[in-house]
Amino acid sequence: MMEPPSPKTRVQRGAERAVYDRDAIVAILDAGLVAHVGIVTDAGAPVVIPMAYAIDGDHLLVHGSVASRLMRTRSPVCVTVTILDGLVVARSLFESSMNYRSVVVFGAPEVLVGDEKREALLRLSDKLLPGRVDHARGPSAKELAATTVWRISLSEASAKVRTGPADEDPGDVDLPFWGGVIPVRLVAGDPEPDALRSPPPPTPEHILEIVTRLRAT
Amino acid sequence: MMEPPSPKTRVQRGAERAVYDRDAIVAILDAGLVAHVGIVTDAGAPVVIPMAYAIDGDHLLVHGSVASRLMRTRSPVCVTVTILDGLVVARSLFESSMNYRSVVVFGAPEVLVGDEKREALLRLSDKLLPGRVDHARGPSAKELAATTVWRISLSEASAKVRTGPADEDPGDVDLPFWGGVIPVRLVAGDPEPDALRSPPPPTPEHILEIVTRLRAT
Repeated sequence: MMEPPSPKTRVQRGAERAVYDRDAIVAILDAGLVAHVGIVTDAGAPVVIPMAYAIDGDHLLVHGSVASRLMRTRSPVCVTVTILDGLVVARSLFESSMNYRSVVVFGAPEVLVGDEKREALLRLSDKLLPGRVDHARGPSAKELAATTVWRISLSEASAKVRTGPADEDPGDVDLPFWGGVIPVRLVAGDPEPDALRSPPPPTPEHILEIVTRLRAT
Repeated sequence: MMEPPSPKTRVQRGAERAVYDRDAIVAILDAGLVAHVGIVTDAGAPVVIPMAYAIDGDHLLVHGSVASRLMRTRSPVCVTVTILDGLVVARSLFESSMNYRSVVVFGAPEVLVGDEKREALLRLSDKLLPGRVDHARGPSAKELAATTVWRISLSEASAKVRTGPADEDPGDVDLPFWGGVIPVRLVAGDPEPDALRSPPPPTPEHILEIVTRLRAT
């Protein structure tokens, strides 16, 4: 769909950068690692907290401690995922900008229980550390009870994407300044084993694959 | 100060990771590039949008289009800056986590005008592209009029920092799984000149310095 699902979801500013295509939205969510979750407190104030997330079909998954004030929210939340791709250097300060891909999701959180909750936690783990579920201890009953998992529909999701050099003001094109883009990306360093084994064991294949994947995106 | 400035600002979850020291907060804000700004709409819903920001002494600066619905907000906002430092691989899925530095600022935006507004815009530019103000056209009266600049006090700011390997459950220490950290960082690629000059001019020194700085942090 190239039209927003509802007026609420229509991108207000920079509509020419708006994307409502489901595949494009999922691709950005696949590439990101951190979501910024915004809620409204009982006092009516906004709170924005960074959290891990995952996708499950047409839904976003978010998890946190049951003791978290934020996770007690049941009213609609806003979940935003942003990937910074570059610094845009224009001949004017005004047109200098950033290249980025971002997704904004509005929705009321549904609290998962039972098997759905357990499966969601495995999916959240697999988003952060793909393949790790086969090389770690899974959640205990106590750990499950200590965690709240939200499922939020992607039906009210939109994306914004900015790419390429600056939209220079025509009057600036001949100014004697450099213009272009400084690309930036998140990269993984070499895995650092903890100190619980001495000497540390060799890094297992599934960890090396996670690193390779992080270096490729 | 090692105590939160007010109950509102006290970090609720993971209090052992909370930081209220001004220098630590400013260091994180210096290292970050993108803020996630949360507001509450007239209908009472949260909206979270990625934005550029800068610091000016005891204040945070944020700017956007005067036509932006978000920038018309005058009630308190929440500005969160997060830097992802690593993926924490625990022997249990439950203790697997992320290493990060984040700052959360609560405050009512003050709209800047006149010289304060112009100076704030130069400061915002200098945060994104240090030194660029001497190598680009500054803001015109029309561009100034098209931009809203907010100043938000850092008096209600807190930070959270997670570093190091997982907090393993004592019962998991001898499990035959790898544990450690996959460090991640944002790095700059080689500057890409735009197509307005053919052949492209050499990359100027101030752009190379921005790249060097991005590679060092």
